[in-house]
Amino acid sequence: MINKSFANVLRRLRKEKQLSQEQFGFQADLHRTYVSQLERGLKSPSLTTLHKITLVLDTNLTELMSLVEQENDA
Amino acid sequence: MINKSFANVLRRLRKEKQLSQEQFGFQADLHRTYVSQLERGLKSPSLTTLHKITLVLDTNLTELMSLVEQENDA
Repeated sequence: MINKSFANVLRRLRKEKQLSQEQFGFQADLHRTYVSQLERGLKSPSLTTLHKITLVLDTNLTELMSLVEQENDA
Repeated sequence: MINKSFANVLRRLRKEKQLSQEQFGFQADLHRTYVSQLERGLKSPSLTTLHKITLVLDTNLTELMSLVEQENDA
């Protein structure tokens, strides 16, 4: 549930940055197939991964979790 | 670095709740030894684990990450 909410937020923010999964993965140092799994809610990202993702998306953990919880409550 | 900041926050919040690592682990459905590893920054919790932890600590992911980022900036 929380992973699916995160998945939706990640996909939206990545697309807002106009990055492909491959481009995003390269910048975040994550494999493209892992990005795909995250965006389908199949994997639960570690705090380390979340932190790397916020750096690429020009956000921070507080903001990212706020979006995830909004999505989760929706 | 981010995991060490999380470690410090987790230990502080658990103690504020006056829970032992064992009691906390029981409530959060995490093994006591895993709680110990988290509180030493040796493991990076998954989003699923972070979510379980917020439920026991009567907080939410946004608040928890705000505390972690404050700790990380300190």
